[in-house]
Amino acid sequence: MKEGIKLEEIIQLLEQNRLAELKEILIKENPIDVADVFEEFPKEKDLIIFKLLPKDFSSEVFSYLSPEKQQEVIENITDEEIKFIMEDMYLDDTVDFIEEMPANIVDKILKNTSHDKRKLINQMLKYPENSAGSVMTVEYISFKDNYTVKQAIDYYRKIAIDKEETDICFVTDSKKKLVGIISLKTLILSNDDSYIKDEMDTNFVSVLTKDDQEETAALFRKYDLTTMPVVDHEDRLVGVITVDDIVDVIDQENTEDIQKMAAMNPSDEEYLKESVISLAKHRIIWLLVLMISATFTGLVIKKYEEVLQSAVYLAVFIPMLMDTGGNAGSQSATLVIRGIALEEIEFSDIFKVIWKELRVSVLVGFILSGINFLRIYYFTKSGFETSLVVAISMFLTIIMAKVIGGVLPLIAKSLKIDPAIMASPLITTIVDTAALIIYFQLSVIFLHI
Amino acid sequence: MKEGIKLEEIIQLLEQNRLAELKEILIKENPIDVADVFEEFPKEKDLIIFKLLPKDFSSEVFSYLSPEKQQEVIENITDEEIKFIMEDMYLDDTVDFIEEMPANIVDKILKNTSHDKRKLINQMLKYPENSAGSVMTVEYISFKDNYTVKQAIDYYRKIAIDKEETDICFVTDSKKKLVGIISLKTLILSNDDSYIKDEMDTNFVSVLTKDDQEETAALFRKYDLTTMPVVDHEDRLVGVITVDDIVDVIDQENTEDIQKMAAMNPSDEEYLKESVISLAKHRIIWLLVLMISATFTGLVIKKYEEVLQSAVYLAVFIPMLMDTGGNAGSQSATLVIRGIALEEIEFSDIFKVIWKELRVSVLVGFILSGINFLRIYYFTKSGFETSLVVAISMFLTIIMAKVIGGVLPLIAKSLKIDPAIMASPLITTIVDTAALIIYFQLSVIFLHI
Repeated sequence: MKEGIKLEEIIQLLEQNRLAELKEILIKENPIDVADVFEEFPKEKDLIIFKLLPKDFSSEVFSYLSPEKQQEVIENITDEEIKFIMEDMYLDDTVDFIEEMPANIVDKILKNTSHDKRKLINQMLKYPENSAGSVMTVEYISFKDNYTVKQAIDYYRKIAIDKEETDICFVTDSKKKLVGIISLKTLILSNDDSYIKDEMDTNFVSVLTKDDQEETAALFRKYDLTTMPVVDHEDRLVGVITVDDIVDVIDQENTEDIQKMAAMNPSDEEYLKESVISLAKHRIIWLLVLMISATFTGLVIKKYEEVLQSAVYLAVFIPMLMDTGGNAGSQSATLVIRGIALEEIEFSDIFKVIWKELRVSVLVGFILSGINFLRIYYFTKSGFETSLVVAISMFLTIIMAKVIGGVLPLIAKSLKIDPAIMASPLITTIVDTAALIIYFQLSVIFLHI
Repeated sequence: MKEGIKLEEIIQLLEQNRLAELKEILIKENPIDVADVFEEFPKEKDLIIFKLLPKDFSSEVFSYLSPEKQQEVIENITDEEIKFIMEDMYLDDTVDFIEEMPANIVDKILKNTSHDKRKLINQMLKYPENSAGSVMTVEYISFKDNYTVKQAIDYYRKIAIDKEETDICFVTDSKKKLVGIISLKTLILSNDDSYIKDEMDTNFVSVLTKDDQEETAALFRKYDLTTMPVVDHEDRLVGVITVDDIVDVIDQENTEDIQKMAAMNPSDEEYLKESVISLAKHRIIWLLVLMISATFTGLVIKKYEEVLQSAVYLAVFIPMLMDTGGNAGSQSATLVIRGIALEEIEFSDIFKVIWKELRVSVLVGFILSGINFLRIYYFTKSGFETSLVVAISMFLTIIMAKVIGGVLPLIAKSLKIDPAIMASPLITTIVDTAALIIYFQLSVIFLHI
């Protein structure tokens, strides 16, 4: 793996004002690493670095900066410099950047953007969040289907330098309809005189601008793609999605699922950058809902208050039953939720899931409640009956927890609710209530209370 | 999006023995979709389909089949057919496939593999699971650094057809050391007479065969790569990792993290395909550990048994306190675990995390315990003091849960323990115990029990 940039070296060169040397070092590095260095510096110093770099290099660095730093740069450079950055940056990066800026900065940016580019930006800003349109780029290469291979290569040589997607090219007919795709490799391996329409691949996968980015990611996954065309309702090519943006989509969707599974409203923001108010907002609703529903569990205890009064030692086993039930249920729920997300499990598998969870839970429940029985009977002063009641309650709780945990995400899916919200916290609350009913009812029967 | 294959149509054509028509339909489809269709058919029928397809098409379909179907095919085709598949399939797919087969099938396969390919397979099988070496391919294109662009393109035309990675080519010096990378695009846009060493990009990122696949995925993410070279300790090029395999790595690592967060030992197997015994094995250890540790919570209740005896109504609020504490803690733990996984949070951020969680928890705790106080005081028959004790316990529990939840994953990270195991179940158990101590102690003080 290559060496990173040494931050101390940069600080030293900057302090000693050895700017020519500094420039020599930086332009040999990957712009992404230079952007990382940039983030480390306070306001005045970072601009010295930025202005030191060649224009096309600095505009690439710019596209990798955090929104905070981007805003700072825009506020401190000339209109001419903004113009250069705006023309040089890829359109999808430009749109991402503009979306993060406050209104006055956006005005300043758009004022310094060419008419054509401004039109494209405005168009892209209209695609709904999380749609295929919002992650696509328009900097691709397309050929007419009546080109020869030689014509196509000549055209490629002329325009490829400014394009983002250059490995796969697209082929459109006279009505701008997308009719095929062709890789640069195929172009190079084909005869100069043959026609693009005879060499292109017509068996390609595409999405509509309004399609969900998560479904788009699933297609990339299934077909091992690096690029996918985006078309409108008349099958006309309007953009291209590249796999690096899909990797971000996958990360983002996973983060959202994980957050929902831990009973939070999902947030795109990085934890350390998110405000306290925003963090609290994303957490409080679910905590409130679950707190209220946990009172049902309290109601069960209230109902059996007399039982508990005459045998208060029963309370000792409540946390263990509740926790084990919750954990057992959340294990099953998690596997099924993940299986649904990766499109490995569908609603029609519900009986397979139930049958599987039943067998797993009998096995797991038998071992756990067996160990539990021995532990309680031999190591605590509880009698045989009490130990048995706890063990049987444990066994039934685990079976119930695992089946509910396996089934609820599938039911959610079939009701078009996100299965991820059926994870541990909600399952725990449901399972807790049922576990206590089982426990107290068995106590009443076996312990004659 | 393109139309999928219509399964009914295939079944009908197969039943009516209209095989020529069936072939016509299938060869127009993506081999991945044909593999999907194949999975739906029972044993005899699927082989009819398989033998119907042209050899190179069927060997591509083969590489996308499930291990079960692959084994069935191998058992039912001739040695000649196996030979063809083995020569035609990409090496990384071959290795994945061989790893899933039982020993007798592996023998049959290797017997029908050329000497050269067998040597490569054996070499690749040696790379440890989850290493960069285990996900790389060796079917790439490399040029000597003293080639001219014209020589390189001529060479490319000769060999590219059999290679897996063809968009980025690699440049080595006389000692086979990797010195640069060059895209096909750059080749096409460069002068025929210029030298590869003058056109190549020397600022590339590479990994060692033994490097972890998760770190490799992080580099793909950071540098927006589609391809990365793998080198040995002498910087010699030994393989290439492509982004489609990295997407699989990301999915796999996310699945593992999610499973660990739900207190399971991670498993690569798809849920529906995993055996009951294996599912139970992956779940039971953690359930057992957590069941035993939940007895500590029981010990707290035992210690305060007299308090509970004289005020058994206190038990009613135990589930709500325990659940809310667990949920609050797991929210914080989840955000920090995810932040660590995406390399956004480091151990050195621990004080930032504590300060953030303190403020969030005061805000959230204040609102929740306020609502709780009003609810208990007005809607249940509990008195002012009891309502107050429950509310204050709730407030303190939430603060403690959120700070513990935020800090434990970071401590785990610094101790080289996987932060993911510090998620909800473990946090819940710790928080439960502390919550009950707070609750009973406050009850003793305020309710004079």
